[in-house]
Amino acid sequence: MKCKRCRRAEAAVDLPSHHAAFCPDCFFLFFRRQVKEGIRKLRLLDPEDRVLVCVSGGKDSLVLWDVLMDEGYETEGLYIDLGIDGYSDRSREKVLAYAASRGKTPIVVELAKEGIPIAEAARCVRMQECSICGTVKRYFFNRVAAEGKFTVVATGHNLDDETARLLGNLLHWQRDHLARQHPLLPGADGGLVRKVKPLWRVSEVETAAYGFLKGIDYVTEECPMSEDATSLVYKEALSRIEDRMPGTRIVFYKGFLDPSNPLRKGPEGEAAPVQEDAPEENTVRGTETDSEEGGGAPRACASCGAPTYTETCSFCRMKERVRKARSQRAARVSR
Amino acid sequence: MKCKRCRRAEAAVDLPSHHAAFCPDCFFLFFRRQVKEGIRKLRLLDPEDRVLVCVSGGKDSLVLWDVLMDEGYETEGLYIDLGIDGYSDRSREKVLAYAASRGKTPIVVELAKEGIPIAEAARCVRMQECSICGTVKRYFFNRVAAEGKFTVVATGHNLDDETARLLGNLLHWQRDHLARQHPLLPGADGGLVRKVKPLWRVSEVETAAYGFLKGIDYVTEECPMSEDATSLVYKEALSRIEDRMPGTRIVFYKGFLDPSNPLRKGPEGEAAPVQEDAPEENTVRGTETDSEEGGGAPRACASCGAPTYTETCSFCRMKERVRKARSQRAARVSR
Repeated sequence: MKCKRCRRAEAAVDLPSHHAAFCPDCFFLFFRRQVKEGIRKLRLLDPEDRVLVCVSGGKDSLVLWDVLMDEGYETEGLYIDLGIDGYSDRSREKVLAYAASRGKTPIVVELAKEGIPIAEAARCVRMQECSICGTVKRYFFNRVAAEGKFTVVATGHNLDDETARLLGNLLHWQRDHLARQHPLLPGADGGLVRKVKPLWRVSEVETAAYGFLKGIDYVTEECPMSEDATSLVYKEALSRIEDRMPGTRIVFYKGFLDPSNPLRKGPEGEAAPVQEDAPEENTVRGTETDSEEGGGAPRACASCGAPTYTETCSFCRMKERVRKARSQRAARVSR
Repeated sequence: MKCKRCRRAEAAVDLPSHHAAFCPDCFFLFFRRQVKEGIRKLRLLDPEDRVLVCVSGGKDSLVLWDVLMDEGYETEGLYIDLGIDGYSDRSREKVLAYAASRGKTPIVVELAKEGIPIAEAARCVRMQECSICGTVKRYFFNRVAAEGKFTVVATGHNLDDETARLLGNLLHWQRDHLARQHPLLPGADGGLVRKVKPLWRVSEVETAAYGFLKGIDYVTEECPMSEDATSLVYKEALSRIEDRMPGTRIVFYKGFLDPSNPLRKGPEGEAAPVQEDAPEENTVRGTETDSEEGGGAPRACASCGAPTYTETCSFCRMKERVRKARSQRAARVSR
């Protein structure tokens, strides 16, 4: 099959949802145009922005960084080392190798050094790993952005991620989550940085194809902690529908984002505050016990100064619980 | 495993979504209680109602008829013979046999005799079979109800049917369909009979178990025309989610029906008219070309007197197109 755009080269990527098939070069053009359209339509980024790109070592975030650099944005990468045996080391390697290939050195945060490695924290605070991960990431997004004078934080969530989350929110009619779900979460005074998801229009398959054809080396394994994440169940269900009815995902998400959609308003009918201090991705049902939602400008955490709607921020509370659990264990051992 | 209710008999039906397992007798009690609760909560039926139960020969409609009779409602069965080779004969046999076992004789409508057998009509009017079937059924529901002085029409749609339809409507944000989807569609002057779905709270698995344990003999094959129906794709996707997270379907549907749900209102924010003259079940995307939606009381079809919001009703228009196609064919053959 010939490329549908140039009609000369052999097609390498088949895109049934766009009734198209492209050769690598035309696919690069198509993909970048999709991302640019996604940025333009929702005004996610400004040419003057200083963008902190959160990179996990997976395809989505590395592809995002790649495209943003190619589009001329001023970017730096942030890698949060979760301290997960093996997986974190392999992910970090990919991030460092990719960054080096573009002459970059990512900012690295190590949770073990910060006193809160995911697996131990999950045992100590009795929360699902994915919820902890969400809290921890949001904390460092804001902190690193403030320290490095970044104007915006970009994450690699793609259309599959966003629609899986949307489906989960709809199945349980989580009205407040629905009101807040958007590729653009505006920042607020007090240290809440703006957060954007520039890949919201492109699917996982498209991102994977872009990464593969561009020769970007990424980790292909899923995070071992997320194996039971309900988001994977929703993603799989939507994949089966998309296979049978190509284009369903983008129609679903665009229709949701339509400003006339009444679910874009909060439960009381008012426009809801869009930022939250609650799990954002891989949310595991029934574990959102540590949310610190609120409206208006946040205040400063009494302990660390991070933006929060409670006395101390959820990150500090979590750290404190890990510290206590450690000292109790030490006391038991010494007896 | 012992029955969770009586704790004596062996459990025969496992219901993870209710964290329960029942012996046959306790399951009968449970199932009937679920149906009664569904009727009571949404005020679907009144003890004085004269109920026309639409029976297809499948498990859901026969179980519905069985439960309504056992609950003391005055009922008659309506079987619409679609004229589908083999399938319709086998379905009719099951309906007649079940009815006879309860000392009943169902009302039978034969589409072939009415000049509109489904398969031929689909070829003639270039609509999907499922859309035609919906139009035809709605027409006869109203007509037979009026002729037999029935106060309400009951169909066997279960929780799986309703949530599959809901998911399809959400994936495409069909706001007008969402505003109208409900187990109770009030009637209107001019011949629109009230329509109810008393099985909305029970799942397909539960209905099948009830039919099987009650010894009701039903057709197990799917309608051969509905094989490609998108509703089956949605149903399967939801089944996979339900398997992993029992109880998701009922939470999804109850949350949708909640009066505070903004999607229960029409696109203009007003309560939408709930009755429609458009496909109701097994709707195939992109084929709803013959809808006659409207608000307020319908007028009488110029040709047959049936309730409609246009000059002639969709059933008469369809019949006319079949008649024309037939005479054109006859003309071609005779030349």
